[in-house]
Amino acid sequence: MSQKPIFISPQEAENAFYDALERGDLDAMMEVWSEDEEILCIHPGGMRLSGYAMVREGWRRIFASGSRLLVERMALTAIPGPFVTVHSLIEQITLRGEKHLAAPVVATNIYQRGAYGWRMIVHHASPVPPDAVGDMPDVLH
Amino acid sequence: MSQKPIFISPQEAENAFYDALERGDLDAMMEVWSEDEEILCIHPGGMRLSGYAMVREGWRRIFASGSRLLVERMALTAIPGPFVTVHSLIEQITLRGEKHLAAPVVATNIYQRGAYGWRMIVHHASPVPPDAVGDMPDVLH
Repeated sequence: MSQKPIFISPQEAENAFYDALERGDLDAMMEVWSEDEEILCIHPGGMRLSGYAMVREGWRRIFASGSRLLVERMALTAIPGPFVTVHSLIEQITLRGEKHLAAPVVATNIYQRGAYGWRMIVHHASPVPPDAVGDMPDVLH
Repeated sequence: MSQKPIFISPQEAENAFYDALERGDLDAMMEVWSEDEEILCIHPGGMRLSGYAMVREGWRRIFASGSRLLVERMALTAIPGPFVTVHSLIEQITLRGEKHLAAPVVATNIYQRGAYGWRMIVHHASPVPPDAVGDMPDVLH
Protein backbone atom coordinates (compact mmCIF):
# COMPACT_ATOMS: atom_id res chain seq x y z
CA MET A 1 0.00 0.00 0.00
CA SER A 2 1.42 3.32 -1.01
CA GLN A 3 2.22 6.02 1.50
CA LYS A 4 -0.64 8.46 1.97
CA PRO A 5 0.04 12.16 1.94
CA ILE A 6 -0.02 14.02 5.24
CA PHE A 7 -1.85 17.34 5.09
CA ILE A 8 -0.51 19.60 7.77
CA SER A 9 -3.36 22.11 7.54
CA PRO A 10 -6.99 22.19 6.41
CA GLN A 11 -5.92 24.52 3.60
CA GLU A 12 -3.40 22.00 2.33
CA ALA A 13 -6.09 19.30 2.30
CA GLU A 14 -8.45 21.68 0.52
CA ASN A 15 -5.87 22.52 -2.12
CA ALA A 16 -5.39 18.79 -2.74
CA PHE A 17 -9.18 18.31 -2.95
CA TYR A 18 -9.66 20.92 -5.67
CA ASP A 19 -6.52 19.83 -7.47
CA ALA A 20 -7.84 16.25 -7.59
CA LEU A 21 -11.27 17.51 -8.66
CA GLU A 22 -9.79 19.54 -11.53
CA ARG A 23 -7.60 16.65 -12.68
CA GLY A 24 -10.36 14.07 -12.29
CA ASP A 25 -7.95 11.97 -10.24
CA LEU A 26 -10.00 9.54 -8.15
CA ASP A 27 -7.10 8.16 -6.10
CA ALA A 28 -5.85 11.64 -5.23
CA MET A 29 -9.41 12.72 -4.39
CA MET A 30 -9.95 9.83 -2.01
CA GLU A 31 -6.61 10.44 -0.29
CA VAL A 32 -8.04 13.77 0.88
CA TRP A 33 -10.98 12.10 2.60
CA SER A 34 -10.99 10.58 6.05
CA GLU A 35 -11.51 6.83 5.94
CA ASP A 36 -14.09 7.20 8.67
CA GLU A 37 -17.45 5.66 7.88
CA GLU A 38 -19.18 8.87 8.91
CA ILE A 39 -17.95 10.99 6.01
CA LEU A 40 -20.61 12.76 3.94
CA CYS A 41 -20.63 14.17 0.42
CA ILE A 42 -23.46 16.13 -1.16
CA HIS A 43 -22.97 17.14 -4.78
CA PRO A 44 -25.09 20.01 -6.14
CA GLY A 45 -28.64 18.70 -6.55
CA GLY A 46 -27.54 15.18 -5.66
CA MET A 47 -28.34 12.79 -2.87
CA ARG A 48 -26.40 12.66 0.36
CA LEU A 49 -23.66 10.07 0.03
CA SER A 50 -22.31 8.59 3.25
CA GLY A 51 -19.33 6.39 3.99
CA TYR A 52 -16.07 5.98 2.14
CA ALA A 53 -17.31 3.48 -0.45
CA MET A 54 -20.32 5.54 -1.48
CA VAL A 55 -18.42 8.81 -1.53
CA ARG A 56 -15.76 7.17 -3.71
CA GLU A 57 -18.37 5.76 -6.09
CA GLY A 58 -19.92 9.23 -6.45
CA TRP A 59 -16.62 10.77 -7.49
CA ARG A 60 -15.84 7.80 -9.74
CA ARG A 61 -19.04 8.40 -11.69
CA ILE A 62 -18.41 12.12 -11.96
CA PHE A 63 -14.85 11.64 -13.17
CA ALA A 64 -15.91 8.83 -15.54
CA SER A 65 -17.80 11.40 -17.61
CA GLY A 66 -14.42 12.60 -18.78
CA SER A 67 -15.26 16.26 -18.31
CA ARG A 68 -12.40 18.30 -16.96
CA LEU A 69 -13.37 21.14 -14.68
CA LEU A 70 -11.75 24.37 -13.66
CA VAL A 71 -12.76 25.57 -10.22
CA GLU A 72 -12.17 29.16 -9.21
CA ARG A 73 -12.45 29.46 -5.44
CA MET A 74 -13.87 32.68 -4.03
CA ALA A 75 -15.02 34.22 -0.76
CA LEU A 76 -13.39 31.69 1.55
CA THR A 77 -14.52 31.88 5.15
CA ALA A 78 -12.75 29.67 7.69
CA ILE A 79 -13.90 28.70 11.16
CA PRO A 80 -10.72 27.16 12.57
CA GLY A 81 -10.50 24.74 15.45
CA PRO A 82 -7.92 22.40 16.98
CA PHE A 83 -9.65 19.22 15.77
CA VAL A 84 -12.26 20.38 13.29
CA THR A 85 -12.08 23.27 10.84
CA VAL A 86 -14.95 24.48 8.67
CA HIS A 87 -14.36 26.15 5.32
CA SER A 88 -17.09 27.85 3.32
CA LEU A 89 -16.44 29.09 -0.17
CA ILE A 90 -17.99 29.83 -3.51
CA GLU A 91 -16.92 27.61 -6.40
CA GLN A 92 -17.07 29.11 -9.88
CA ILE A 93 -16.96 26.01 -12.06
CA THR A 94 -16.22 26.00 -15.77
CA LEU A 95 -15.73 23.13 -18.16
CA ARG A 96 -12.17 23.19 -19.44
CA GLY A 97 -12.10 24.54 -22.98
CA GLU A 98 -15.38 26.38 -22.60
CA LYS A 99 -15.85 30.00 -21.67
CA HIS A 100 -19.38 29.54 -20.43
CA LEU A 101 -19.59 30.00 -16.68
CA ALA A 102 -21.63 27.40 -14.87
CA ALA A 103 -23.84 28.53 -12.04
CA PRO A 104 -21.82 29.16 -8.90
CA VAL A 105 -21.88 26.67 -6.08
CA VAL A 106 -21.51 27.24 -2.36
CA ALA A 107 -19.49 24.59 -0.57
CA THR A 108 -19.20 23.76 3.10
CA ASN A 109 -16.01 21.74 3.56
CA ILE A 110 -15.26 20.23 6.95
CA TYR A 111 -11.83 18.91 7.89
CA GLN A 112 -10.84 16.80 10.88
CA ARG A 113 -7.36 16.37 12.34
CA GLY A 114 -6.37 12.75 12.82
CA ALA A 115 -3.38 10.44 12.75
CA TYR A 116 -2.75 11.31 9.10
CA GLY A 117 -3.05 15.05 9.48
CA TRP A 118 -6.11 16.92 8.23
CA ARG A 119 -8.69 15.05 6.18
CA MET A 120 -12.04 16.01 4.70
CA ILE A 121 -15.08 14.60 6.51
CA VAL A 122 -17.89 16.61 4.86
CA HIS A 123 -18.32 18.25 1.45
CA HIS A 124 -21.74 19.86 1.00
CA ALA A 125 -22.09 21.72 -2.30
CA SER A 126 -25.25 23.36 -3.64
CA PRO A 127 -26.15 25.93 -6.28
CA VAL A 128 -26.37 29.59 -5.36
CA PRO A 129 -27.92 32.43 -7.37
CA PRO A 130 -25.45 33.92 -9.86
CA ASP A 131 -25.50 37.41 -8.36
CA ALA A 132 -23.36 38.65 -5.51
CA VAL A 133 -22.78 36.57 -2.41
CA GLY A 134 -24.48 37.81 0.72
CA ASP A 135 -27.86 38.94 -0.59
CA MET A 136 -31.02 38.10 1.25
CA PRO A 137 -32.94 34.95 0.40
CA ASP A 138 -36.27 35.26 -1.35
CA VAL A 139 -37.13 31.64 -0.82
CA LEU A 140 -38.97 30.00 1.99
CA HIS A 141 -36.71 27.87 4.12
CA MET B 1 -31.01 41.80 28.82
CA SER B 2 -32.83 38.54 29.28
CA GLN B 3 -31.07 35.35 30.25
CA LYS B 4 -30.11 33.24 27.28
CA PRO B 5 -30.82 29.54 27.32
CA ILE B 6 -27.89 27.18 27.82
CA PHE B 7 -27.91 24.20 25.50
CA ILE B 8 -26.02 21.36 27.11
CA SER B 9 -25.73 19.29 23.95
CA PRO B 10 -25.76 19.86 20.18
CA GLN B 11 -29.02 17.89 20.05
CA GLU B 12 -30.65 20.27 22.52
CA ALA B 13 -29.56 23.23 20.40
CA GLU B 14 -30.87 21.50 17.30
CA ASN B 15 -34.23 20.78 18.89
CA ALA B 16 -34.51 24.48 19.80
CA PHE B 17 -33.54 25.44 16.24
CA TYR B 18 -36.31 23.40 14.62
CA ASP B 19 -38.80 24.38 17.29
CA ALA B 20 -38.09 28.07 16.60
CA LEU B 21 -38.28 27.42 12.85
CA GLU B 22 -41.68 25.73 13.15
CA ARG B 23 -43.03 28.47 15.41
CA GLY B 24 -41.56 31.28 13.30
CA ASP B 25 -40.05 32.70 16.49
CA LEU B 26 -37.18 34.99 15.51
CA ASP B 27 -35.89 35.64 19.03
CA ALA B 28 -35.86 31.94 19.87
CA MET B 29 -34.18 31.18 16.54
CA MET B 30 -31.39 33.68 17.14
CA GLU B 31 -30.79 32.40 20.67
CA VAL B 32 -29.68 29.14 19.08
CA TRP B 33 -26.99 30.86 17.01
CA SER B 34 -23.53 31.77 18.18
CA GLU B 35 -23.00 35.52 18.27
CA ASP B 36 -19.73 35.03 16.49
CA GLU B 37 -19.31 37.07 13.34
CA GLU B 38 -18.23 33.96 11.46
CA ILE B 39 -21.61 32.21 11.50
CA LEU B 40 -23.01 31.16 8.13
CA CYS B 41 -26.53 30.36 6.94
CA ILE B 42 -27.45 29.05 3.51
CA HIS B 43 -31.16 28.58 2.84
CA PRO B 44 -32.19 26.25 -0.01
CA GLY B 45 -31.39 28.02 -3.27
CA GLY B 46 -30.43 31.19 -1.42
CA MET B 47 -27.25 33.18 -1.04
CA ARG B 48 -24.73 32.55 1.69
CA LEU B 49 -25.53 34.80 4.64
CA SER B 50 -22.68 35.55 7.01
CA GLY B 51 -22.55 37.22 10.40
CA TYR B 52 -25.19 37.53 13.07
CA ALA B 53 -27.00 40.55 11.62
CA MET B 54 -27.35 39.07 8.14
CA VAL B 55 -28.36 35.64 9.39
CA ARG B 56 -30.98 37.28 11.61
CA GLU B 57 -32.33 39.37 8.73
CA GLY B 58 -32.64 36.22 6.59
CA TRP B 59 -34.78 34.49 9.19
CA ARG B 60 -36.78 37.67 9.82
CA ARG B 61 -37.77 37.80 6.16
CA ILE B 62 -38.68 34.11 6.07
CA PHE B 63 -40.79 34.35 9.21
CA ALA B 64 -42.40 37.61 8.02
CA SER B 65 -44.13 35.67 5.25
CA GLY B 66 -46.38 34.27 7.95
CA SER B 67 -46.14 30.71 6.68
CA ARG B 68 -45.92 28.13 9.40
CA LEU B 69 -43.83 25.10 8.64
CA LEU B 70 -43.73 21.57 9.92
CA VAL B 71 -40.31 19.97 9.68
CA GLU B 72 -39.96 16.22 9.94
CA ARG B 73 -36.34 15.34 10.62
CA MET B 74 -34.97 12.13 9.13
CA ALA B 75 -31.73 10.24 8.66
CA LEU B 76 -29.69 12.13 11.23
CA THR B 77 -25.98 11.50 11.09
CA ALA B 78 -23.81 13.03 13.82
CA ILE B 79 -20.06 13.56 13.81
CA PRO B 80 -19.46 14.45 17.45
CA GLY B 81 -16.48 16.31 18.84
CA PRO B 82 -15.48 18.03 22.08
CA PHE B 83 -15.73 21.55 20.64
CA VAL B 84 -17.49 21.16 17.30
CA THR B 85 -20.22 18.71 16.35
CA VAL B 86 -21.61 18.23 12.85
CA HIS B 87 -25.16 17.06 12.24
CA SER B 88 -26.48 16.06 8.83
CA LEU B 89 -30.13 15.34 8.31
CA ILE B 90 -32.95 15.34 5.82
CA GLU B 91 -35.74 17.86 6.43
CA GLN B 92 -39.18 16.97 5.10
CA ILE B 93 -40.91 20.34 5.15
CA THR B 94 -44.64 20.87 4.84
CA LEU B 95 -46.70 24.00 5.15
CA ARG B 96 -48.95 23.72 8.17
CA GLY B 97 -52.50 22.94 7.07
CA GLU B 98 -51.42 21.50 3.74
CA LYS B 99 -50.82 17.88 2.95
CA HIS B 100 -48.58 18.56 0.01
CA LEU B 101 -45.01 17.54 0.74
CA ALA B 102 -42.40 20.02 -0.28
CA ALA B 103 -39.20 18.72 -1.81
CA PRO B 104 -36.88 17.36 0.85
CA VAL B 105 -33.87 19.34 1.96
CA VAL B 106 -30.52 18.11 3.21
CA ALA B 107 -29.08 20.18 6.06
CA THR B 108 -25.58 20.37 7.44
CA ASN B 109 -25.82 21.87 10.91
CA ILE B 110 -22.62 22.70 12.79
CA TYR B 111 -22.54 23.42 16.51
CA GLN B 112 -19.75 24.88 18.60
CA ARG B 113 -19.30 24.63 22.35
CA GLY B 114 -18.70 27.96 24.02
CA ALA B 115 -19.33 29.87 27.22
CA TYR B 116 -23.10 29.55 26.71
CA GLY B 117 -23.10 25.87 25.90
CA TRP B 118 -23.63 24.61 22.37
CA ARG B 119 -24.61 27.10 19.66
CA MET B 120 -25.17 26.80 15.94
CA ILE B 121 -22.42 28.26 13.76
CA VAL B 122 -23.41 26.91 10.33
CA HIS B 123 -26.72 25.91 8.73
CA HIS B 124 -26.36 24.82 5.11
CA ALA B 125 -29.62 23.58 3.59
CA SER B 126 -30.18 22.59 -0.04
CA PRO B 127 -32.75 20.61 -2.03
CA VAL B 128 -32.24 16.91 -2.61
CA PRO B 129 -34.07 14.65 -5.07
CA PRO B 130 -37.32 13.29 -3.63
CA ASP B 131 -36.32 9.64 -3.85
CA ALA B 132 -34.38 7.70 -1.25
CA VAL B 133 -31.34 9.17 0.43
CA GLY B 134 -28.04 7.64 -0.56
CA ASP B 135 -28.46 7.18 -4.29
CA MET B 136 -25.72 8.07 -6.68
CA PRO B 137 -25.56 11.53 -8.20
CA ASP B 138 -26.29 11.93 -11.89
CA VAL B 139 -25.13 15.51 -11.93
CA LEU B 140 -21.74 16.85 -12.69
CA HIS B 141 -20.06 18.28 -9.63
